[in-house]
Amino acid sequence: MFEIRTDLAVEEKESFPGNGGEVAGVSLREWRKAASSIKMTEVEILDAAGARAMGKPEGTYITMEAQKLGYQDEDYHKEVAQELACQLKRMVGNLKKARVLPVCGPLHVLAVGLGNPSVTPDALGPAVLGNLRVNRNLQTAQGLPEKAVLSGIVPGVLAQTGMETAEIVGGILHETSPDLIIAVDALAARSIRRLGTTIQLTNTGIQPGSGVGNHRHSLTYKSLGVPVVAIGVPTVVGAAAIVHDTISSMIGTLWSHMETKGMGDYLDQLEPDDQYQLICELLEPEFGSLYVTPPDIDQTVKRLSFTISEGIHGAFFGEEEDEEEPERG
Amino acid sequence: MFEIRTDLAVEEKESFPGNGGEVAGVSLREWRKAASSIKMTEVEILDAAGARAMGKPEGTYITMEAQKLGYQDEDYHKEVAQELACQLKRMVGNLKKARVLPVCGPLHVLAVGLGNPSVTPDALGPAVLGNLRVNRNLQTAQGLPEKAVLSGIVPGVLAQTGMETAEIVGGILHETSPDLIIAVDALAARSIRRLGTTIQLTNTGIQPGSGVGNHRHSLTYKSLGVPVVAIGVPTVVGAAAIVHDTISSMIGTLWSHMETKGMGDYLDQLEPDDQYQLICELLEPEFGSLYVTPPDIDQTVKRLSFTISEGIHGAFFGEEEDEEEPERG
Amino acid sequence: MFEIRTDLAVEEKESFPGNGGEVAGVSLREWRKAASSIKMTEVEILDAAGARAMGKPEGTYITMEAQKLGYQDEDYHKEVAQELACQLKRMVGNLKKARVLPVCGPLHVLAVGLGNPSVTPDALGPAVLGNLRVNRNLQTAQGLPEKAVLSGIVPGVLAQTGMETAEIVGGILHETSPDLIIAVDALAARSIRRLGTTIQLTNTGIQPGSGVGNHRHSLTYKSLGVPVVAIGVPTVVGAAAIVHDTISSMIGTLWSHMETKGMGDYLDQLEPDDQYQLICELLEPEFGSLYVTPPDIDQTVKRLSFTISEGIHGAFFGEEEDEEEPERG
Amino acid sequence: MFEIRTDLAVEEKESFPGNGGEVAGVSLREWRKAASSIKMTEVEILDAAGARAMGKPEGTYITMEAQKLGYQDEDYHKEVAQELACQLKRMVGNLKKARVLPVCGPLHVLAVGLGNPSVTPDALGPAVLGNLRVNRNLQTAQGLPEKAVLSGIVPGVLAQTGMETAEIVGGILHETSPDLIIAVDALAARSIRRLGTTIQLTNTGIQPGSGVGNHRHSLTYKSLGVPVVAIGVPTVVGAAAIVHDTISSMIGTLWSHMETKGMGDYLDQLEPDDQYQLICELLEPEFGSLYVTPPDIDQTVKRLSFTISEGIHGAFFGEEEDEEEPERG
Repeated sequence: MFEIRTDLAVEEKESFPGNGGEVAGVSLREWRKAASSIKMTEVEILDAAGARAMGKPEGTYITMEAQKLGYQDEDYHKEVAQELACQLKRMVGNLKKARVLPVCGPLHVLAVGLGNPSVTPDALGPAVLGNLRVNRNLQTAQGLPEKAVLSGIVPGVLAQTGMETAEIVGGILHETSPDLIIAVDALAARSIRRLGTTIQLTNTGIQPGSGVGNHRHSLTYKSLGVPVVAIGVPTVVGAAAIVHDTISSMIGTLWSHMETKGMGDYLDQLEPDDQYQLICELLEPEFGSLYVTPPDIDQTVKRLSFTISEGIHGAFFGEEEDEEEPERG
Repeated sequence: MFEIRTDLAVEEKESFPGNGGEVAGVSLREWRKAASSIKMTEVEILDAAGARAMGKPEGTYITMEAQKLGYQDEDYHKEVAQELACQLKRMVGNLKKARVLPVCGPLHVLAVGLGNPSVTPDALGPAVLGNLRVNRNLQTAQGLPEKAVLSGIVPGVLAQTGMETAEIVGGILHETSPDLIIAVDALAARSIRRLGTTIQLTNTGIQPGSGVGNHRHSLTYKSLGVPVVAIGVPTVVGAAAIVHDTISSMIGTLWSHMETKGMGDYLDQLEPDDQYQLICELLEPEFGSLYVTPPDIDQTVKRLSFTISEGIHGAFFGEEEDEEEPERG
Repeated sequence: MFEIRTDLAVEEKESFPGNGGEVAGVSLREWRKAASSIKMTEVEILDAAGARAMGKPEGTYITMEAQKLGYQDEDYHKEVAQELACQLKRMVGNLKKARVLPVCGPLHVLAVGLGNPSVTPDALGPAVLGNLRVNRNLQTAQGLPEKAVLSGIVPGVLAQTGMETAEIVGGILHETSPDLIIAVDALAARSIRRLGTTIQLTNTGIQPGSGVGNHRHSLTYKSLGVPVVAIGVPTVVGAAAIVHDTISSMIGTLWSHMETKGMGDYLDQLEPDDQYQLICELLEPEFGSLYVTPPDIDQTVKRLSFTISEGIHGAFFGEEEDEEEPERG
Repeated sequence: MFEIRTDLAVEEKESFPGNGGEVAGVSLREWRKAASSIKMTEVEILDAAGARAMGKPEGTYITMEAQKLGYQDEDYHKEVAQELACQLKRMVGNLKKARVLPVCGPLHVLAVGLGNPSVTPDALGPAVLGNLRVNRNLQTAQGLPEKAVLSGIVPGVLAQTGMETAEIVGGILHETSPDLIIAVDALAARSIRRLGTTIQLTNTGIQPGSGVGNHRHSLTYKSLGVPVVAIGVPTVVGAAAIVHDTISSMIGTLWSHMETKGMGDYLDQLEPDDQYQLICELLEPEFGSLYVTPPDIDQTVKRLSFTISEGIHGAFFGEEEDEEEPERG
């Protein structure tokens, strides 16, 4: 059976009645940096009830949305990279406060570029890794690192390696013992308008079934013993999601048409669950794995891979600044 | 406004009432090679009426369908490559009979790999060109060619070059004067099941709006003064097409449900044109350019690019065989 | 017979006695921008005698040398890009003064990325084109361009296309009528230390036998009817050149050793021409096409392709500044 | 100090006086398959004395030489692939006899594609992995494998990952416990004529300093606890090796010239060690890492990556045949 899903917590939240009204166990915070067109959202899933409702694990999900990310504006991409660096630093700071990361000494960070380098919308992770300036090799040769130690791997995909990403990453952990994993991945969204314009940052790692490639195993603190911060950008929408949305919208339209004619009784009974059932009957089984992607996805992946790699560099090698915790609204 | 289209003449034909029944000005022929699982279809658009009805220009469209093309079976791909070579030879033979191609002497063939090499489902043309063994450079150095002279170009896409493909190809024609163009392109289909399992061969060239990349200009005998044989494989389905199909199917289902309850009057009035209108209202405008593609499209493009390049080699450099014109059924 | 050559005019000049002393028909100017570590050299070949002596056509050759180009220092690359933009503007300005380029209205520039994208040290041209933001397609859709019209092509290499680059570019000229060609190419140097640290800019275009790929035909004002500015970076040294240099140096060493022992008579007679003859006897014939390249050439090509593309953007789309002609020293 | 080396045992052997005459602790066997133009050589280093003399560890080195490998002749490449499969099977069979590999049940083979995918002559390993059809993922889903279980990894290079290949491979071993590693690597040769025309197969694994990329650590049975069979093709010659060979040859020429004039005394004293010393003085220090490679190396890597991947498929998934041990000559 196909799955109608989104990898973005912010979209999951929006899908609740009242366009993302109060959900028990989930807190929401939205803000905008002054003079910036970047819309920030922080969804926090606080307990098991919230996790069940959202279908995502407990933790923090920060979303940066910016329609202009779709354009080739270098200044703007620099601004987004700085904000990403800033949020990444804050998330790492919180992991230090929680004693999940060592407080002193340079962190050893392993960056993992998930996805299939041969499939354009799934190539974001490998593209980011192609831009990263690793220094673990330099550090061991030239003495103690000052700020952070960075290494990186593009593990490939199951069909190319015959191995789960979790196996490859697990093996590398065993050999190199990093403190922190930064996993970069291309995501699936529900809304077309978020493709290439949104960056999600989360401390919950990578879940099974997530990403453009539908990862089969998790990369999480629990599964690996090392905290995993995931950075993702939606590059596809599941084909089933699009059909579902259109039909839901259509049923609404039909219903209002018919209601005026007193014929709405039947459609009225089509509850969301029934709608879903109906769509499943209509769609062919192979439909579940198909995805929708825009024609200029190659440019989007190229541009955002620079923005994200600069964000990672900024977080670990940038100037020290005091990042104030934004006030909770 | 988005467009619901297919680049496959065989699908256009199927869309007529009675699942592709008689259409004035269009002839259809289907056959299977004995002991082969390749289903062959030849659609011939015979006059202006047929062209109007089909939305495609007059000419011959040969389709090779083979579900097994989706698998990595080398013998099978060799069989398909041989059949493609055979049909390509036949088409070239007919162009010679029509005096559109010179009858004597080695043909000079320019292969054109259309599409965006950076976008996986649009990269079929460039991938085929990567496998071709051009010999125009060898021939000029070593004397007269025996069978055929092959050159090739990957012209790139408008957003990368700032130039229309028709301009680049036109310029190369002006300089090198080939007799024939073979244009290889990734296509859009209506049916998911045809993705990566169908090869279309046509003597009508490339039309505006066709291909994964929605070419803006034509590459045809009329526009270029040189006959253009196009080889294409569908690698995407337009997102709008999928939504349309699902909703059409849904309306049918709803209608039969409601008819039993005597409420079908309203939906009954939803003629195909109204349905289309309704869908257009529901979909966002940017939807038109989105496409649906399967997750293993990289493997498909790689495999089929070998099959097609071998087919082209076979047609122009292979052993001479007498290809009998199949009888018209 | 193999050829010991350099594509850099500055190296050709240095090879004259007295480390590049006075050569009739050749003027030399060297300067440094204040506070910059970029060493600038301008070699001007003024007449036929100079051209014969240098083995290069009449025209201007500007060289920017900067050892730090080998490192990943973004600020520095930005400085070099600005200087490249500045020199490119000056060269274009001189072409306008000479009425070879139109003085009024936006220039239409065709960028050509020469070289083989599949061979790392020859991939500079294609890499630069991958970073360029062409706008010819935008201009025609949205009205008159303000500053310049940019289009671009990666013509591939003879073995892949079966066509000469000059044929492909000539055809595109015929169709799109640009005012100016900017040809970007990877070069062969004599000195290892110049690999990846030098940029040469010349208004003489591309000569037969030049470049990593040993172009067979020229791309020049004379051959194409359009002025051609070439931007190149040396990425290889001919293997024969290295052997020649080492042996010359060895003969010198041996000679001084032997002279002290009174045995130098024979070696003394080994004039440069004899040395060359001797080396030719020693080397196998296939040696001529071999080249020497450093192991981190991929990083070099990636970095410099950004520097050069930014330089081109700066020259044609950057802010207007008054570029003063540096005083002739 | 630069190193004059070859990764080919057969070249090391040839470098001994008498063109590879008797060396204590080293056995040599040469043969040709009837009706085949593949020249086979097996060098066996039998003990520590042989290892010291050859500068390579004890073990078996099989070389397949075929000038025609440089051409695009599919039948010939198929023949070489079959012979490679045959030799690989024999080597695996000997590892089974030695109880280093399990005798019963399907082998689990991990293929490792060493080298830098972004540097053409170093990309052989990654290219072979791109052609391999791994099945470890299929086997676990569909029951017990029949013949062999294949997985594969492209570990990248130190400058890109910040990690040693030995760390990445070691980690994957820890997680997936293969029985055997097949490491594919591009090699450095001494002789230009062996570039792209020779395949070496050895059961000694990968040594520090070997390969185009000068691996820093070993991948061997001793270091990893799993037998490592290495398949390599020379794609570069060290620049220092070429200079050395030319100068050695030059000294010989000079010597004979001078001897006739009674002046050879000095040069006579230039023993090989002195020559080496002299060259070291003449060459710049950065020279050591430079390499020489032919201009059509991209085609060579592409062609041979298919030959080798087919050889690996044939060895583990091909038909069972009785491979007779060739008689020792």
